[in-house]
Parts: sequence; C-alpha cells; structure tokens
Amino acid sequence: MSKPRILIQLDTDAQVSVFDSVVAVDAGVERLFRHQHVTSENVRDLVHGAMFTRGGDDLSQTAIFIGGSDVQAAEDVLRAVTDCFFGPVRVSVMLDPSGANTTAAAAVLAAARHISLAGVEALVLGATGPVGRRVVRLLARQGAAVRAASRSRDRAAEVCQSVATAVEGATIAPHETSTEAGLAAAIEGAQLVIAAGAAGVELLSAEQREASATLAVAIDLNAVPPAGLGGVEPTDKAVERTGAAGQKTVCYGALGVGGTKMKIHKAAIRQLFTRNDQVLDAEEIFAVGQSLE
Amino acid sequence: MSKPRILIQLDTDAQVSVFDSVVAVDAGVERLFRHQHVTSENVRDLVHGAMFTRGGDDLSQTAIFIGGSDVQAAEDVLRAVTDCFFGPVRVSVMLDPSGANTTAAAAVLAAARHISLAGVEALVLGATGPVGRRVVRLLARQGAAVRAASRSRDRAAEVCQSVATAVEGATIAPHETSTEAGLAAAIEGAQLVIAAGAAGVELLSAEQREASATLAVAIDLNAVPPAGLGGVEPTDKAVERTGAAGQKTVCYGALGVGGTKMKIHKAAIRQLFTRNDQVLDAEEIFAVGQSLE
Amino acid sequence: MSKPRILIQLDTDAQVSVFDSVVAVDAGVERLFRHQHVTSENVRDLVHGAMFTRGGDDLSQTAIFIGGSDVQAAEDVLRAVTDCFFGPVRVSVMLDPSGANTTAAAAVLAAARHISLAGVEALVLGATGPVGRRVVRLLARQGAAVRAASRSRDRAAEVCQSVATAVEGATIAPHETSTEAGLAAAIEGAQLVIAAGAAGVELLSAEQREASATLAVAIDLNAVPPAGLGGVEPTDKAVERTGAAGQKTVCYGALGVGGTKMKIHKAAIRQLFTRNDQVLDAEEIFAVGQSLE
Repeated sequence: MSKPRILIQLDTDAQVSVFDSVVAVDAGVERLFRHQHVTSENVRDLVHGAMFTRGGDDLSQTAIFIGGSDVQAAEDVLRAVTDCFFGPVRVSVMLDPSGANTTAAAAVLAAARHISLAGVEALVLGATGPVGRRVVRLLARQGAAVRAASRSRDRAAEVCQSVATAVEGATIAPHETSTEAGLAAAIEGAQLVIAAGAAGVELLSAEQREASATLAVAIDLNAVPPAGLGGVEPTDKAVERTGAAGQKTVCYGALGVGGTKMKIHKAAIRQLFTRNDQVLDAEEIFAVGQSLE
Repeated sequence: MSKPRILIQLDTDAQVSVFDSVVAVDAGVERLFRHQHVTSENVRDLVHGAMFTRGGDDLSQTAIFIGGSDVQAAEDVLRAVTDCFFGPVRVSVMLDPSGANTTAAAAVLAAARHISLAGVEALVLGATGPVGRRVVRLLARQGAAVRAASRSRDRAAEVCQSVATAVEGATIAPHETSTEAGLAAAIEGAQLVIAAGAAGVELLSAEQREASATLAVAIDLNAVPPAGLGGVEPTDKAVERTGAAGQKTVCYGALGVGGTKMKIHKAAIRQLFTRNDQVLDAEEIFAVGQSLE
Repeated sequence: MSKPRILIQLDTDAQVSVFDSVVAVDAGVERLFRHQHVTSENVRDLVHGAMFTRGGDDLSQTAIFIGGSDVQAAEDVLRAVTDCFFGPVRVSVMLDPSGANTTAAAAVLAAARHISLAGVEALVLGATGPVGRRVVRLLARQGAAVRAASRSRDRAAEVCQSVATAVEGATIAPHETSTEAGLAAAIEGAQLVIAAGAAGVELLSAEQREASATLAVAIDLNAVPPAGLGGVEPTDKAVERTGAAGQKTVCYGALGVGGTKMKIHKAAIRQLFTRNDQVLDAEEIFAVGQSLE
C-alpha cells in the first residue's frame, strides 16, 4: 500500500496561503505540513526531514511547494531547497509564489489558442513584475518577438538581459512606456499584448488598444478595476472586440484566465507525486498546462 | 464526489487552540488549516483564499472558525472576515472565542429545561465578561427580565445599553454587586441566576443563595474552586438543592453544563458545511442548541 | 466507530520538525496538530485542549509528541505537560527531541545483538550530549560497567552523578578524553564503544580503535564526515573489521543504526494510542525497541 501523499507547503509570508492549501487538498494531497516565515536560511532542516524519512519509491509521495507574496524570497528558498539534495535523495518541488508561474502559464496558453506564438510580435506590459517576467520568458521560449515594457527603461532592459541569458536565441527588446510616444512605439504592430502590471493601474487605454490595426489577442491579468487594458472586462474569456480600425481582437480578463490557471495549478501539484526528481518552475508548469489543452 | 470539508481555524492567540481543533475533527472536519496570531488587519488574504478556490456548491465545503482567548479581538476578526464577502462569494463562519458562545448557549438552554424564560426574573453575575454579555443577550431575546450585575455599575450599564440596542423590547437593568446591599437587591426575587464571572471568584455565597425564597435555577459556569455560586459543585447537573427557606433550586456546575456545550459546539461546526452563507454568533449557536434539546 | 488518532506535535523550535511529522503520518497518525515555539510556560492550554475534549476510551486516541533541537527545553515541556494531568484525565506522551531517545535506544539495541550488556565494559564517547547521556543511562540499566567520557572531567562526572541517582546500583565512572593518556585509559579493556559526539568530530582514531585487543562492538552515531570512530563507515551495519591485534570488531555507522531508529520511532508512536497513561522517555522507548528485536 502506498504511503499518504504529503505536501510540505513552505510560505515566505507570516501567514501560510489558504489559497495554495485549498488547491493542494483539491488536487489530492492527503497531508499538508504548512510552514510560515520560511527563508533560505531556515529551510534546510525542513528539507532534510523530507529527504530522510521515506525511501525508494515512497520518496515520490513527499513533495515541496514554495509560495508566498515575495517572489524573490521564494526563489531564494527554491535555490536553498535544491542545494540540499544529492544523488537520488531528493523530492519534487514546485515554485508558485503569488501564483506567478501558474498565472503566466495560463496567460500564454490562452494566447496560443488563437495565434501561433512563433514569430509573433508580443508586447508585455508590466514586464518587470513577477508575473510579467515569467510571461516574457515563456513567450521568448515559444519563439515570439517579445517587447518587454516598463515605465523604466533600465528595469525593462534588465529583464531583457536576464531572459536573453536564460533563453538561447531569444528575440527580445526593452520598451519604456512612461510617455505617450513610448507606449505608442511599444504597441505599434503588436499582434499580442499581455498586461501583467500592478492591480488597479491602467496600462493601455481603450482608445489606444482599439486604434491598433494588428492586435489579434489582448490579455489583461489585473482583476481589480480599473482594468490594465481599457475596455477588457475581468470576465472576458475569448471575447471578440472590434477596434476603431475594424481589427478584431480576442480578449481575456483575469477571471477569464483564472479557470485555466486553477487547472494548471492542480495538475502541477498532481504531477509532483509522479516522480521524486522534478523542479516545477515557469517552463515546467507551462508544459503541464500544454498537456491539458 | 463532494470535496473534503475544510475548516480554516483562525485564532487570535500565539498558539492555536487544541481544544477547538479536536472538537472540529470530532465534528467531521476533514482538513483543518490552523492559523495563529490572526488579526483584523492580516485576515483578508486568508479569507480570499477561502472565497476564490472553490465554486458553486463546493463553496459550502469550506468554512471559517474564529477563536482565541481575546473575545474583542475575535469579534474584530469576524467583522473583517464578513467585510471580505460579496454576493454569493462567501463561506460560512462561526465565532466562539474562549467558547463564549457555546458556553452561554449551553447555560441558557440548561435553564430553559426547568423554567420558562419568558418573563422570568433572571440575574446574571459577571455580566460584563465575554460569556456574561452573551448570556444577558440570549436571555433578553427569550423575553426574560434580565438583571445584569457587575462590581461596577458603569460597566453593567454599558452592557444593558449594548444589549438594549441589539434586542428590541429587551427588559434589562444594571445592578452593582460590590456591596452587600447591592448584591441583596440583585438577588431579591430572582428565579434564575447564572454566574459567569472570572475563574475562582465567589460571586454569591451559599448562605446568600440559600436565603432566597424564589430561586428555581442556579447555574455556575466557573470550573475552578472556589465556586462562583457557593455550594454548587462543578459536576452538578440538574441537582436539586433545598435552601434555608425551603425553596428547591435546580443547580448546574461548569462540568454539568459542559456536555451540552460540547454537543452544541460540534453541531454548530457540522451546520457550517450545510450552506456557504451562515454567520454563527451567539443567537445562531443558541438556535443550534435548541434544535438539539 | 473509534475517533481519528490525533497527535499533538509540540516543538520547541521556530519551525516544527518535518522529520517527526512524516514519521508520525507513516506510523498511522490520522490528524497532526503542529505547534512551534512551545515552552514550559505556554504549553498548559494546549494540554488542557487534549485532556478535556474526549472522554473514556476515546482519550487514548489523542496523544502528545514533544520534539525540537533543544533537549533541555523539551524535557522542561515534558515536565510541564505531565504536571497538567490529574487522575485518569491524561493522554500519552512521547519525548524525542533531536531523535535523542530513539537514536540512543537503537544504538544500545544494536550492541545487544552482538554482546551481552550485563557486566560488559562499555565506553561512551560524547557522553555529555543529549544522545550520549541517554546511551549511558540505558547501558547502566542493562547492567553494563559504563565509562562516561567527555573532554571535560567535570561534565563527565555530572553525567555519572545524574545517572547514578536515576539507576539504582549503576556501575559508572567518568573519563576525561582531552589527552592521549586519558583516551587510552578510557578505551583500555573496553568491549563496547559508542560514539555520540558532535557531528564531524573524530573522537577515536582508526589506529586507536584497531589497537584494542578487547573491542567487540563499535558504534558511531555521527553521520557527517569525518567519522566519530575512525574507519567506521556511516553505512556500516554489523560490518566486521579486524584490528592490528587481530581483534574482530562488529561496526555500525549512523545510517546502519538509522533503520532500527526509524522502526523504534514508528512503533513508539503507534504504542501511544494503545493507552492514555503512558510517558515514553528513554527507558520506555528502549523497551519498545526490545519488543521489535
């Protein structure tokens, strides 16, 4: 008889995420060990406890989830976790702080339903945030020509540099959108736009969006009004809207993407327990999502 | 197949109550997410995690319990929790800090087994504490003429004011019991007395209690010696004691009420999972208790 | 139908031990209530929650485990826990901070497979640490002539004093091993040596060990190189090594003892739920181990 599936939920916040816990339970996790205030400094003993208690095939029935609102801190914890492993003595790990990986994967998958990503001109607004960075990375890997936009050119350039290092042959350019002219240049000729900015900040007005003669897909990941993309409703799910130039644009809002995000999240949790040697970060979680489409 | 019943146990203390957790498990809760140090400031994300993870009928399989030793803090958390809800996107919530609601309900139900509460002259000693305030409120709603007693007349008056506002048509008067004369006036003609004071403080001596020619029911909620009501044993459960004036008084001690309290507590937890829109505070928990009698 | 088996895991550290939690689950615990930062001062309410929620036979289905890296603090918590109990109103408790009790039991049981402990000349290196103290105590109870060795004669003497008080008729002597001569005197004529020192410190070189003409069993509890006993491998499990004097010594390393430790740990957890009045400290956990051999 196989052992109960244990998920060790490591959260960098002062309170462990209830959201991540409910999803884990609904994905079939049988025992949840929930830890708050986890850091790259204090995580070692917790990981050793996962590594040294079950042997052989049973080791795949223990896994680690890393979450919390601070994406950088969670990435540090992931590094510290994988540093503990040696040889076959390891457990599978999933990283999804603030839902950044599952959200980015869901957004890119939504786009891929309507447009071929290879070679597409793709604008990512709010590209320097946790979700935005992952969207840029996933699009670049799919062969898109990515425009990483931010109010700050320096920060946009830093994201481009970082993704170019990670993704061989990436086509990616920084855009500064703090001025009207900068924003106009960023959107000019784009076929896909994904807005991943802070909640409640409009990144592109309805007029600017509708003026485009090329925009085929527009995805807004902001659920709190006002919308990040003017005129896109949070509940939009493949809603076709026609612009001033007659261009038809398929639109998604945050809730429209949310169902896919939830399915990817649960499928990724389930996949953790199929082997003991997985590290599920942006690309791996995107692959999980692809297998569900 | 319905989803596992999840109870999110929000505790305002530094350690989550083991008592509340065991009762939850024994009431059929399948997954318990336990949070300590919860405040009205940090609770929002926890509530959102409950609201946004399950849809439709499944939302009734997630519920929230608010406990801890600080009743005021717990009430603040309840307000913050219900403020998060909108439309049908909500989960059921139960408030029972320090067992105040389940204990008050059990005490009033015990009295109702022996005496009609409508119109009864009821004295509540320790009326300004967390349990006492709820006993006053429940008695007032049942139509009793309530005497809210405290060592401080100002605090007694404050409770009367607060309950009068909450319960339309309440008959309620403050009593100061810091003097012999005040206490004598409070007990004069009372048919029911419920002692809800601090642990280990005698509020009424055996002589004072036995001198009454009208007292039909006496309930002491203090489990730590000396008794709050002199001569009432913690284990008393409908024990008839005869006073100096020949008056027969049915007596309950803390443990004698405890069995009923525990049944109410478990039934209330079970009821949480029948719908997603309940808020179980004193009155609702009393109603749960009534349905068990 | 019996109630779910609840284990209340009280940990003195800032993060609850994942190791202890996984073992509890794999030993059949159905619900785990995990508490960090537990002290002898804040434990009372937690224990009351265990004592006052289930009655009769059901009380045996609630138990307490005390762990953490600070053995002294955990022992203080154990005292505070048992102080809460009265009459039959109690639950079973297991103490195993840093795995000290299960490790000491496993080491002594490993020795007993190869040599009769009654009257044996037994040297314990690192005798003043948490595991070492328990090894000394268990050996003394089995009738061994124990040599408690430490770099400090005062601390070695303190252990002897403490064990002599606890174990009637114990044969036990302190040894100072900070000098070559002291170490030579300690090992001279010893038939059994158990090294329980700090991780990564060699307590006896391979040459010193192999020079012995009497050593029948050598057990090293240090898993981190260098070995506590030179030339003993962590994976050694009853490996026979021949010394310079032709003496054959059966050797165990930390991992070689680990399988037995794990079996004892799980069996002890299971035993908690057979009655509600047990306190499982070193001797009781050793007895659990004996029943498995």
